[in-house]
Amino acid sequence: MPKKSVKPLETAVANSLAMYMNYKRYHWNTFGPLFRDIHLLFDSHAEPVLSSADDFGERARILGAEAIGSADEVVKHATVKLAHSGMRVKEMIEQAVANHRIIIAEYKNAIKVAGRENDPGTADLFTRIIQVHEKQE
Amino acid sequence: MPKKSVKPLETAVANSLAMYMNYKRYHWNTFGPLFRDIHLLFDSHAEPVLSSADDFGERARILGAEAIGSADEVVKHATVKLAHSGMRVKEMIEQAVANHRIIIAEYKNAIKVAGRENDPGTADLFTRIIQVHEKQE
Amino acid sequence: MPKKSVKPLETAVANSLAMYMNYKRYHWNTFGPLFRDIHLLFDSHAEPVLSSADDFGERARILGAEAIGSADEVVKHATVKLAHSGMRVKEMIEQAVANHRIIIAEYKNAIKVAGRENDPGTADLFTRIIQVHEKQE
Amino acid sequence: MPKKSVKPLETAVANSLAMYMNYKRYHWNTFGPLFRDIHLLFDSHAEPVLSSADDFGERARILGAEAIGSADEVVKHATVKLAHSGMRVKEMIEQAVANHRIIIAEYKNAIKVAGRENDPGTADLFTRIIQVHEKQE
Amino acid sequence: MPKKSVKPLETAVANSLAMYMNYKRYHWNTFGPLFRDIHLLFDSHAEPVLSSADDFGERARILGAEAIGSADEVVKHATVKLAHSGMRVKEMIEQAVANHRIIIAEYKNAIKVAGRENDPGTADLFTRIIQVHEKQE
Amino acid sequence: MPKKSVKPLETAVANSLAMYMNYKRYHWNTFGPLFRDIHLLFDSHAEPVLSSADDFGERARILGAEAIGSADEVVKHATVKLAHSGMRVKEMIEQAVANHRIIIAEYKNAIKVAGRENDPGTADLFTRIIQVHEKQE
Amino acid sequence: MPKKSVKPLETAVANSLAMYMNYKRYHWNTFGPLFRDIHLLFDSHAEPVLSSADDFGERARILGAEAIGSADEVVKHATVKLAHSGMRVKEMIEQAVANHRIIIAEYKNAIKVAGRENDPGTADLFTRIIQVHEKQE
Amino acid sequence: MPKKSVKPLETAVANSLAMYMNYKRYHWNTFGPLFRDIHLLFDSHAEPVLSSADDFGERARILGAEAIGSADEVVKHATVKLAHSGMRVKEMIEQAVANHRIIIAEYKNAIKVAGRENDPGTADLFTRIIQVHEKQE
Amino acid sequence: MPKKSVKPLETAVANSLAMYMNYKRYHWNTFGPLFRDIHLLFDSHAEPVLSSADDFGERARILGAEAIGSADEVVKHATVKLAHSGMRVKEMIEQAVANHRIIIAEYKNAIKVAGRENDPGTADLFTRIIQVHEKQE
Amino acid sequence: MPKKSVKPLETAVANSLAMYMNYKRYHWNTFGPLFRDIHLLFDSHAEPVLSSADDFGERARILGAEAIGSADEVVKHATVKLAHSGMRVKEMIEQAVANHRIIIAEYKNAIKVAGRENDPGTADLFTRIIQVHEKQE
Amino acid sequence: MPKKSVKPLETAVANSLAMYMNYKRYHWNTFGPLFRDIHLLFDSHAEPVLSSADDFGERARILGAEAIGSADEVVKHATVKLAHSGMRVKEMIEQAVANHRIIIAEYKNAIKVAGRENDPGTADLFTRIIQVHEKQE
Amino acid sequence: MPKKSVKPLETAVANSLAMYMNYKRYHWNTFGPLFRDIHLLFDSHAEPVLSSADDFGERARILGAEAIGSADEVVKHATVKLAHSGMRVKEMIEQAVANHRIIIAEYKNAIKVAGRENDPGTADLFTRIIQVHEKQE
Repeated sequence: MPKKSVKPLETAVANSLAMYMNYKRYHWNTFGPLFRDIHLLFDSHAEPVLSSADDFGERARILGAEAIGSADEVVKHATVKLAHSGMRVKEMIEQAVANHRIIIAEYKNAIKVAGRENDPGTADLFTRIIQVHEKQE
Repeated sequence: MPKKSVKPLETAVANSLAMYMNYKRYHWNTFGPLFRDIHLLFDSHAEPVLSSADDFGERARILGAEAIGSADEVVKHATVKLAHSGMRVKEMIEQAVANHRIIIAEYKNAIKVAGRENDPGTADLFTRIIQVHEKQE
Repeated sequence: MPKKSVKPLETAVANSLAMYMNYKRYHWNTFGPLFRDIHLLFDSHAEPVLSSADDFGERARILGAEAIGSADEVVKHATVKLAHSGMRVKEMIEQAVANHRIIIAEYKNAIKVAGRENDPGTADLFTRIIQVHEKQE
Repeated sequence: MPKKSVKPLETAVANSLAMYMNYKRYHWNTFGPLFRDIHLLFDSHAEPVLSSADDFGERARILGAEAIGSADEVVKHATVKLAHSGMRVKEMIEQAVANHRIIIAEYKNAIKVAGRENDPGTADLFTRIIQVHEKQE
Repeated sequence: MPKKSVKPLETAVANSLAMYMNYKRYHWNTFGPLFRDIHLLFDSHAEPVLSSADDFGERARILGAEAIGSADEVVKHATVKLAHSGMRVKEMIEQAVANHRIIIAEYKNAIKVAGRENDPGTADLFTRIIQVHEKQE
Repeated sequence: MPKKSVKPLETAVANSLAMYMNYKRYHWNTFGPLFRDIHLLFDSHAEPVLSSADDFGERARILGAEAIGSADEVVKHATVKLAHSGMRVKEMIEQAVANHRIIIAEYKNAIKVAGRENDPGTADLFTRIIQVHEKQE
Repeated sequence: MPKKSVKPLETAVANSLAMYMNYKRYHWNTFGPLFRDIHLLFDSHAEPVLSSADDFGERARILGAEAIGSADEVVKHATVKLAHSGMRVKEMIEQAVANHRIIIAEYKNAIKVAGRENDPGTADLFTRIIQVHEKQE
Repeated sequence: MPKKSVKPLETAVANSLAMYMNYKRYHWNTFGPLFRDIHLLFDSHAEPVLSSADDFGERARILGAEAIGSADEVVKHATVKLAHSGMRVKEMIEQAVANHRIIIAEYKNAIKVAGRENDPGTADLFTRIIQVHEKQE
Repeated sequence: MPKKSVKPLETAVANSLAMYMNYKRYHWNTFGPLFRDIHLLFDSHAEPVLSSADDFGERARILGAEAIGSADEVVKHATVKLAHSGMRVKEMIEQAVANHRIIIAEYKNAIKVAGRENDPGTADLFTRIIQVHEKQE
Repeated sequence: MPKKSVKPLETAVANSLAMYMNYKRYHWNTFGPLFRDIHLLFDSHAEPVLSSADDFGERARILGAEAIGSADEVVKHATVKLAHSGMRVKEMIEQAVANHRIIIAEYKNAIKVAGRENDPGTADLFTRIIQVHEKQE
Repeated sequence: MPKKSVKPLETAVANSLAMYMNYKRYHWNTFGPLFRDIHLLFDSHAEPVLSSADDFGERARILGAEAIGSADEVVKHATVKLAHSGMRVKEMIEQAVANHRIIIAEYKNAIKVAGRENDPGTADLFTRIIQVHEKQE
Repeated sequence: MPKKSVKPLETAVANSLAMYMNYKRYHWNTFGPLFRDIHLLFDSHAEPVLSSADDFGERARILGAEAIGSADEVVKHATVKLAHSGMRVKEMIEQAVANHRIIIAEYKNAIKVAGRENDPGTADLFTRIIQVHEKQE
């Protein structure tokens, strides 16, 4: 079992779920005709990060670890910033961009770890999903 | 603005997201040919509770409140039990059933609150989604 | 368990299945180019009443009762009139309309029963399906 | 008019509708996470037997007979056993298998009758649908 | 026949058609690359209000009344403001929001009228469609 | 800007919307099993005339004019007859046919106007949609 | 090569194409709101007989013969009656029914011929398509 | 009624149906792995000419004439060459190309006739379908 | 249990899988722009023979036998020729045609065996699939 | 031509086809209501390994080699264990898991070989498909 | 061969491809959350102009000319302005609008040329596609 | 910003667009029944290279560079040969194959550059698209 890949996968699950909830929160709170475009943007960004959580969670199980993922585990393992009340649209966008950068840096590292563990499946998973975040950055 | 409906909506958002993450966590950790049926069951239950979160979050905005939804807000507002490491399949099912019961009781109450506030849209939303939980109980 | 809702659900299952079979019988026996429009009408009415049987049967189980539904139980519990041999098209239509009226009256009553039992899910189910019958009346 | 084919078609309509209702009854009463697989199995078996009823009913009309099909006619003409309250899952499966065997034997006979009546359409109909029952046996 | 529900249904048909035409008029007159987002918004709002006209018109017939709906009847029965030439985009949005508020108030009243007439189908129809207007408000 | 094409486009928008509402009014008031075929016919005619309104409205904008389209503008600009209460089915059909003839004559004229203005796009639009009306005449 | 099956296949190609053209001719000449149902009926019957022509034509080639099918060959080989100008709707229906009876008789014969030639594929083809004609008879 | 357009429409119906049957005949008789590409080509050309027959037949009715279309009328009115037994693939292609040229010439003429009759719908129909033949030439 | 039908089913499973692999091997080795048509032909033939293997394997189980199907069982039971390295395209086509002839002869025999065993389901299965091979011959 | 990549591709084609047949054999022989879930599991595993065979076979051709793939070549080149008669369900699952492990080890090696040959396309192909096997392990 | 239509078709191919590349260039360089709406607008405009290139290229061949279309031919024949580095969004929109105007003028001329050459197919092609450009102007 | 990856991306955009236009030019100029297969082949190759242009252009923007792509930039940056008038089919195929080889060599180099820049997203993009070209070579 390539054990060193498990920790990055746990962070990845937590960050994916945390960013999903951030995006939905942004989405709900940019309601009304004047915000329609950004409202739709946030929702379109929410879906791929959620779907990546599923890939990371299943990958952790494939490596033999127990997958984390409940709400308090997400809070504990996430390294991204969480959305909070009172944010303006500009702050939402800046927070999202900053979070994507955090994730991109972590995935680049995870790819190296998986490469050293002779685990091409995990490396490929991070390589594919890093592009999702690069597009949204 | 029917203010008394906001608090149940916040709880509903939090519980929906928390149950979604619980179901995904159950789903990931019931991996392998011997658990396939229960593995699929958990995933099929995850989707409708997630989708209800979106309805509740948008409804809170329609009533004029700021919608909550980030990971720490979910932990704070949720009244359901969260999944944790080391659960056996039987415990997962029991926890899920107990959580659905908590939610059903809260939604029945929310329907009454919305009725008293002359807010038929909110009442109808809880009425529709209570049936999702009754089916999964 | 809201016990008083079970009896109306049993009648509803039986009537839905009985009307489905009536409509199929009408459909088959209005065969040929001269009856094509009424032949299609009967078939288009058959589908929604059948689908409502499934909703009622599952609801009975949700309330904790055993669902009825076999052919002799349908005969026993149904309150609608059953189709029989030798009917002319006009009689088929009149029988169908009369049966929808019976069902509408029973569902209005069932909605009240479920309201008194604090069972909004059952009430909503009857409210949705009453509209199917009102359209076909 | 190949008259001798009519009687087997009436039995086939009645048995198809009776088995459909049996399968829905089994389906409803195998509710909950522990029965999900068998619950889905019963529902997937219900659909093809229902659809065969339509073929048989229309065939009876093509041969010039009045098609039977209302609930009391089903009870009268059916040769399969009907589901009843209090059955355990094992009993449901055994009853279903026994019923499929009854039907297969009757269809093999119906194919011969239709062959003797120079009615290849009816023979082909029974030949196709016998395979549905052989798969579910 | 629940007669008191007819009048609100006539107003609802007229207002739905009037708002549809308003939205199409806004849509056409916000043409060009600089208005694309609001141009699409208006069109996406047009469709659900048009579709609700159909529900209201058919419901009036179900209650036994003759449905209104021709262009001059719409002008006569509508209580919303009609679009006119020379409006700027801001005025279009404000008019739309004000019109949704008029409609929401009327539907809340209609729900009560239908409740008093023991007409759950009509009440449910207004309850469902009020949410369309609350989302667009 | 080919100004002379604008007036026919305004009439075309108004007539298309007016005929749409006529057809929906006919459709709603030919309710019940005895009128099903004509009920469906009216609805199937409603859709293409509505869709043509959109083409005409957008074309007016392309030519640089403000598009008309609100309910009172429709009443003012329409040259077709409007449906009214108390019509029998035969009257509905006759009114619809007469209205299509009015429109066909106007479109033939509009094609000539657009030809003289060197506006092949407008001419082609009327040429395509005249065939919709010729089919329904 | 089962040569005796070729002649029935040629007749079948010709009759299928001839009936297709009959049905289209009926379809075109039952134009207008008063004939809509029968107009659609004729068109819905046209498609399956056309599609059977393709099966018969390819089958003839499979048996090693050259397939016939051009317009004058159809006229020469067809045994059904051809539509002609001045028919009333009742005559169209009677002609269609009579033609289906001619075809059914010929296919029953063709099934026997193919059986004697040990050619189960051809026999099965006629058996399947005879049911199309029995439904339309 | 633009009477002079009727004759070209009758020829167009006949030629479309005749070419359809030619293409199916070519298609069937270019059977086997060595002819697969040309076999598919012929079939892909058959469909659009068939579909044009329907447009022409309905157009004739719109102009008030009785539409022709039965097999012997096709033989009588067609001006294209008909396929016959013993053709090689090269002959099939040459015959098809020659037939398309005949049709293109006739349609160019029909467009002029319809223009003189002030019948833009018929002119547009021939203009659209001439392009089908130009592509296949 | 109609035992004599089992042996033909085993051969049929093996031949279907063997021909599938042959066709894929032909498909892969006819790579490049000059072979595109035959490359696609082989792939389009592969799919239906594979799908027939599933029908035969399940049928063997329905008759109560254990289904064969692993790679060495295929080699042992197959009566068709296997593809080998160094074949030219012409040889591939000739081998495929010869194999279809072997299979057609065996299926005609299997239909007779199943007829004698009073097993119309098996007979119908071979009758349907023989036509797949006759088309590809 | 990266010659060293060819040998792993041949093994991969053979193993993919061999596992496909194993899974179908398991699938057929886990027939009946008690095995439905595992029966479906085996079938859902069959499809992706079959589809990978196509990728490997085409890749071998891209590298300039002749692709292997007939039944006896599969037996010769496969390194996985083949299913055989008399296996219990538990043995089937264990054999499948063991075979996936064999394949995963071989693909990790193949990725390294392709890397050394400067053949990123082949390396990526094995990297993608290794994840299919890791999921099914 | 209507030779005078060829030159406008060559320009049309070149301009369509050139505008496609312009739109993609605009699309790529309006990246990020602040430009999402205009980013999508440019992409939605790119598709129809590309698709028109195909129509023009095939039309040139139908007229018997060799179609141009490679990158240097596009540069040579295009009369629209090409995008270049360093453009701001406003400049992109202005350039696009100006280019559509150039094209509209050229197509109006091409329609006249094709009319004089008795080439209704080419005229119709330009008439249809001019409307695409008028919408985007 | 991994600057050294930008240059290969610019070449890749230019080559993708240039090859797209080459393939369309080949496609248009291989018109008629004798060239249908190669005509379709060229079109099926055009689509994936066009789609890769979009990936490369967006990737350049993700890396922070301005994406090139207008027609003259394509001519300037492309390293593939451009199609020209008077080519025979054989020359088209040879040119296409040679161009794919140029691109494959460049992408292999780009993968190495991106690897050295620690830019796994760009490396993965080239790795995926190199396989498109290897398949078409």
